[in-house]
Amino acid sequence: MAKSLSGAGLRGQVAGKTALSTVGKSGSGLTYRGYDVKDLANHCEFEEVAYLILKGKLPNKGELAEYKAKLKSMRDLPAALKEVLERIPKDAHPMDVIRTGCSMLGNLEMENDFSEQEAVTDRMLACFPSIICYWYRFSHDGVRIDTTTDDDSIGAHFLHMLHGEKPRELHEQVMHVSLILYAEHEFNASTFTARVCASTLSDMHSCITGAIGTLRGPLHGGANEAAMEMIEGFTSADDAEEKMMGMLERKEKIMGFGHAIYRESDPRNEIIKGWSEKLSKDVGDEVLYPVSVRCEAVMWREKKLFCNADFFHASAYNFMGIPTKLFTPIFVMSRLTGWAAHVMEQRADNRIIRPSAEYTGEELRSVTPIDQRD
Amino acid sequence: MAKSLSGAGLRGQVAGKTALSTVGKSGSGLTYRGYDVKDLANHCEFEEVAYLILKGKLPNKGELAEYKAKLKSMRDLPAALKEVLERIPKDAHPMDVIRTGCSMLGNLEMENDFSEQEAVTDRMLACFPSIICYWYRFSHDGVRIDTTTDDDSIGAHFLHMLHGEKPRELHEQVMHVSLILYAEHEFNASTFTARVCASTLSDMHSCITGAIGTLRGPLHGGANEAAMEMIEGFTSADDAEEKMMGMLERKEKIMGFGHAIYRESDPRNEIIKGWSEKLSKDVGDEVLYPVSVRCEAVMWREKKLFCNADFFHASAYNFMGIPTKLFTPIFVMSRLTGWAAHVMEQRADNRIIRPSAEYTGEELRSVTPIDQRD
Ligand SMILES: CC(C)(COP(=O)(O)OP(=O)(O)OC[C@H]1O[C@@H](n2cnc3c(N)ncnc32)[C@H](O)[C@@H]1OP(=O)(O)O)[C@@H](O)C(=O)NCCC(=O)NCCS
Ligand SMILES: CC(C)(COP(=O)(O)OP(=O)(O)OC[C@H]1O[C@@H](n2cnc3c(N)ncnc32)[C@H](O)[C@@H]1OP(=O)(O)O)[C@@H](O)C(=O)NCCC(=O)NCCS
Repeated sequence: MAKSLSGAGLRGQVAGKTALSTVGKSGSGLTYRGYDVKDLANHCEFEEVAYLILKGKLPNKGELAEYKAKLKSMRDLPAALKEVLERIPKDAHPMDVIRTGCSMLGNLEMENDFSEQEAVTDRMLACFPSIICYWYRFSHDGVRIDTTTDDDSIGAHFLHMLHGEKPRELHEQVMHVSLILYAEHEFNASTFTARVCASTLSDMHSCITGAIGTLRGPLHGGANEAAMEMIEGFTSADDAEEKMMGMLERKEKIMGFGHAIYRESDPRNEIIKGWSEKLSKDVGDEVLYPVSVRCEAVMWREKKLFCNADFFHASAYNFMGIPTKLFTPIFVMSRLTGWAAHVMEQRADNRIIRPSAEYTGEELRSVTPIDQRD
Repeated sequence: MAKSLSGAGLRGQVAGKTALSTVGKSGSGLTYRGYDVKDLANHCEFEEVAYLILKGKLPNKGELAEYKAKLKSMRDLPAALKEVLERIPKDAHPMDVIRTGCSMLGNLEMENDFSEQEAVTDRMLACFPSIICYWYRFSHDGVRIDTTTDDDSIGAHFLHMLHGEKPRELHEQVMHVSLILYAEHEFNASTFTARVCASTLSDMHSCITGAIGTLRGPLHGGANEAAMEMIEGFTSADDAEEKMMGMLERKEKIMGFGHAIYRESDPRNEIIKGWSEKLSKDVGDEVLYPVSVRCEAVMWREKKLFCNADFFHASAYNFMGIPTKLFTPIFVMSRLTGWAAHVMEQRADNRIIRPSAEYTGEELRSVTPIDQRD
């Protein structure tokens, strides 16, 4: 007999082991391989954290330089992939574009063997920003961009391709922080998708493609875009408060708030909130940041719901001139590291993930001949 | 505290509810919406079963005719999708092709709203065979086939495009049976992937794309191809026995045997085995079928392991002249119905699927400045 679980959505149920991160262990903490995410966000570049997650240790100076040089050398896209991206219309969902780009890459550069798992992951890490920006700039501006910039970091490479010029130092710095905060988060839905896929011994591109599709949902990665769309509609903090009260009354879900595991706060929020404030001053904003702060206060006061990682990411990305529809693809550029590390972990100690279901359907019945059916 | 589970791979753990099927309920049974799969395979066409799974009841004559006419009218592919398929090399994995084709379709014909879920599913059901065959014939034979045949069924449409001529009645009949047997199977790994994806409220194309990637793995759908590769290497029943004994001694996994839920037999096996025997006689085979029968006997005698749905599918497909690498894509053409129905069921009563993990990693530590690292 299959054992029944107490909650829906496997909430609070252990579905496997991981050495990659802890979520909410001490109430609200988040650690990657033992390091507090705040410590990492304060002291590291994203490439150091990617190395930590994928290869198990923080790199020393030489290892980091080598890793960055390697990633830099792999930014170009195969011609066939560019041709595919050129056939995706402007009004497509950018998450569908990166999902398709990743899947197509698997046709052109297949993972033949698990010994190639690190190499194909590094390649994706290097070229996902190129996929996103190549499609975006071609479909929106009609230009075929050169994806081989010599920018020092993944975040700068992305902003450079997007805006056509090297980013300012402040923006590169925020990209490091943002990509670090999004890099890994235990058995969230997209990562769990990647592990279920890996458990059939499928290839890395299949696992990542599936994870991208899962992250796309508004209850998961899509929340940063939904949060932006909401706060954009508020003209002032007071207006925000009034409208949010209405939404709460109508029992609408407010995107960017709440969490499946954290109960009192999301440790990523105070970090990205700090950078959003800095960016707000930098651009002379007098609406979006105060609006966001008021939303936070109202949700806590009314519902004891707190901002998750997505909420202040919305304003921060907006202040850097990033189009709203590219918010979730940035999440992909980062979370790819966590997904791939979980795939590797699953492969190293695998059993196919195949749960059971509680049956709620019809009793046994026999097929009525077709000419006697209602 | 998260509750720990007894087995790895969520085996035997209830992860949700379904009204779509029962697996192994009476030891070895399989039912779709209350109908025994044997009853369905003996009395129905695949399109009737697809209708049953997706729309909840067996269609009457008028409904079936209407449904088939509708599917028939949607076999053509958008030009941009054909152009993408033409850019996928001949040596690509066909599961990567259909995964990419499905993902690309999502860019061109997005599910804007859940009210479109049945329409986008019907469209996929109609055009997946076209995607597979268009790429296969273009990359292997250099021809751009017309995907709008007027064949009566999905199976005949597929065989017609593949071989360039209308299939014989026997082959069309076997395709009906095969597609019925593969249509639905409760919370198997690919279906569970689709449900995890759906639980973030992502779109149908994301859910199906993720499921295809999961089915690709050799422990899941990929097993029918792996079984074919194995039996092809055996020259006679005695040769098969000798070589299998060696594989068992070396503790190799034998693809097409065993199951996560069934303990004594897979109810789908006796059905497809019967058709494989009929096809074997039809083509005058004296090796593949006897080899397969001996494999079955050896595995039961030595390990009490039985054939699952995949094992006799290998010889059956081979007798119909289907290239081995297209075996798992046929599984996709069929299981799509189960996947989509599970997505609809998940959406109708949703909570995000987000389990927990048991942490096995490093204790809390602080970041060492980069110039002091080993
Ligand atoms: C993240 C999320 C999916 C977690 O789901 P969960 O684990 O099922 O949520 P909980 O069990 O904590 O929810 C408890 C209650 O709070 C409500 N709630 C949770 N988040 C809410 C939100 N953002 N707005 C309004 N109500 C919310 C739930 O509806 C639930 O109420 P109910 O019991 O009346 O149905 C959920 O909080 C949510 O949908 N948030 C908005 C989307 C988002 O920001 N996602 C990004 C996550 S990083
Ligand atoms: C289907 C399958 C993945 C189920 O996995 P599972 O639930 O973890 O399997 P079980 O718990 O029943 O396995 C019990 C034991 O039998 C062994 N076993 C199962 N299937 C086997 C096979 N096909 N060949 C050899 N040994 C097998 C397992 O290795 C395990 O041995 P262990 O305890 O020494 O590790 C597994 O049977 C398998 O890998 N089969 C081959 C692939 C295949 O045909 N897949 C298609 C499924 S429709």
